[in-house]
Amino acid sequence: MNMIIIGFGNVGQSLAEMLELRAPELRERYGLKVNVVAIVDRGGAALSEAGISLSEAVKAKRFRGSVSTMRGLGRPQLSALEVLEEVDGDIVIEVTSTSLETGEPGLTHIKKAISSKKHVVTTSKGALAQMLPDLIELANKNDVSLMFSGAVGGAMPILDFAKMCLRGEKVESLRGVLNGTTNYILWRMAERRIGLSQAVREAQELGYAEENVSYDLNGLDTACKLVILANWVINRRVSLKDVETRGIEELSLEEVLKAKEEGFAVRLIGSIKENLRVRPERVSLRDPLCVDSSLNAVVFTCRYSGQHVLIGRGAGGKETASAVIRDVLTIAQGFGWASSPKDVLNVNPKSVWATP
Amino acid sequence: MNMIIIGFGNVGQSLAEMLELRAPELRERYGLKVNVVAIVDRGGAALSEAGISLSEAVKAKRFRGSVSTMRGLGRPQLSALEVLEEVDGDIVIEVTSTSLETGEPGLTHIKKAISSKKHVVTTSKGALAQMLPDLIELANKNDVSLMFSGAVGGAMPILDFAKMCLRGEKVESLRGVLNGTTNYILWRMAERRIGLSQAVREAQELGYAEENVSYDLNGLDTACKLVILANWVINRRVSLKDVETRGIEELSLEEVLKAKEEGFAVRLIGSIKENLRVRPERVSLRDPLCVDSSLNAVVFTCRYSGQHVLIGRGAGGKETASAVIRDVLTIAQGFGWASSPKDVLNVNPKSVWATP
Repeated sequence: MNMIIIGFGNVGQSLAEMLELRAPELRERYGLKVNVVAIVDRGGAALSEAGISLSEAVKAKRFRGSVSTMRGLGRPQLSALEVLEEVDGDIVIEVTSTSLETGEPGLTHIKKAISSKKHVVTTSKGALAQMLPDLIELANKNDVSLMFSGAVGGAMPILDFAKMCLRGEKVESLRGVLNGTTNYILWRMAERRIGLSQAVREAQELGYAEENVSYDLNGLDTACKLVILANWVINRRVSLKDVETRGIEELSLEEVLKAKEEGFAVRLIGSIKENLRVRPERVSLRDPLCVDSSLNAVVFTCRYSGQHVLIGRGAGGKETASAVIRDVLTIAQGFGWASSPKDVLNVNPKSVWATP
Repeated sequence: MNMIIIGFGNVGQSLAEMLELRAPELRERYGLKVNVVAIVDRGGAALSEAGISLSEAVKAKRFRGSVSTMRGLGRPQLSALEVLEEVDGDIVIEVTSTSLETGEPGLTHIKKAISSKKHVVTTSKGALAQMLPDLIELANKNDVSLMFSGAVGGAMPILDFAKMCLRGEKVESLRGVLNGTTNYILWRMAERRIGLSQAVREAQELGYAEENVSYDLNGLDTACKLVILANWVINRRVSLKDVETRGIEELSLEEVLKAKEEGFAVRLIGSIKENLRVRPERVSLRDPLCVDSSLNAVVFTCRYSGQHVLIGRGAGGKETASAVIRDVLTIAQGFGWASSPKDVLNVNPKSVWATP
């Protein structure tokens, strides 16, 4: 399976490292051989039909700033769109850092990849929040797959859970902690009795937050995830402007500590009921949404089977990369690049696990 | 889709009621028309090629003890095996109350149904714990599907989650509260400071426990679920004798209250690590397994994506029936009796959601 990776930041590099680490296992267990034929970052691209050494690519990026510095393979200035035009790939991994307001550059990359009949796995919340229904339609028209597990929930398979495991259910409402960075910050504020800005710095030092935390703090990251969930899971055609969004920027240490004294914790909650809403809320310590550290949590309330709670690791490059690999494997199995492991019990492949 | 229901206790009747309630929705949204052509209980069977009225069947069972009393349709003494022999059905729902030690009568019913090329949805923990790998092999050989979501976790889709949502992962260990009845009992003992036998009576009066609670209390129910999870999810060929099982029969109110004083709760925990083990354990109040009432909870620890927690409604006829309907819908979609809802976003049906 020939892969093009667009975007080589935290997630892209974690993906490269994990693909290299897991290569023997993916080959032996699933018969899947991933051949990365192109990597694109802001400085240009690296191309190789024979396959790029992923550890070399990570080194080039870390020590010399761009994969385009790779000897023999580097193509400084070559853009993602040019690569998508020129390079023959089966699957495109779109993991650029994309504006949540415009969805770019992810949106253009995804459309271009799909139009050139390549499968796409993306983590681009911005692009998906802008036009998920159109992208799905485009993918179906071009007979390729579009998957985006890593866009919501990080390592935690929220989207697959809702789509596959709640088959035939009606999700009536949803509440969740969908941003690991702010959860870490809120948790630390209460635990260590420190103000917002200090907690942000700590989170950045420990790798729980990126340098730019404004999308986390102002709630827009959570709002994008809500829009994706609403469209994909609850079948509501909404967009960002439909989300009433308030972040934690103005939350004082006082409020956090007062809540704590009264037996509550403050968490940034995204909810879908009649309305879509993001705001800091008090939750009781026994509430399943009262998760610690950078965890994510979601409560689905369903018509027939009641409430389902899912808790897992939301943030982080490795976590998101693990979701990307899950999607890659799903597509690889669906299109014949990978098989089911032989040693595993499975019912009739051609029968079950139909599209929900 | 012609359905045969074998076993008409709590789950069977809940299923019948839910199928009737949801008939318009299943037809409109999924194009699925379920026609129940046979129901079997201990007193005999009711048969009708044109379809049995499900509310009439429930009435016959509740007020006259058996569906075989239904006017015109009743066949007193007709056995499940005879029905499976005589009646042409597409899918068999096996929801008898089955011995956890021998797996019978469920095991015989399931084998017979599969051998006669009928799809099977079952909740029979006993049969599955006895010989899940053989039953899967038999189903694959006969080109039919075997699904059993309701056997573990009630309404909570533990098995689908592990199979579909953790694709490509390695589940390294698992811990869970898998028996809602004992969880309710343990919770009430601590909350109301009452002894085991009083808590059992209360649970029975409120419908959280069946009349026979020995499988719940002695841990065998949890042990069966562990065996199913180990075989299906973790790929370990183990059976009941491999589970070190201790129940809550000898747990005193004193122990429960002492734990509470020290900031813990006692829960009946099933775990799979090097060994399979069922036993009452102390868990901290912030532990995700410290769920209240009759909830179930599971923590999967995975090699790449860390811990995933799932919490949901474990016990109850309605809850289990909702899992059965989920399986029925999966099979119906896979084999063309039902479609995906048209108003829902979905990627290319023929591409994604391949067998994990």
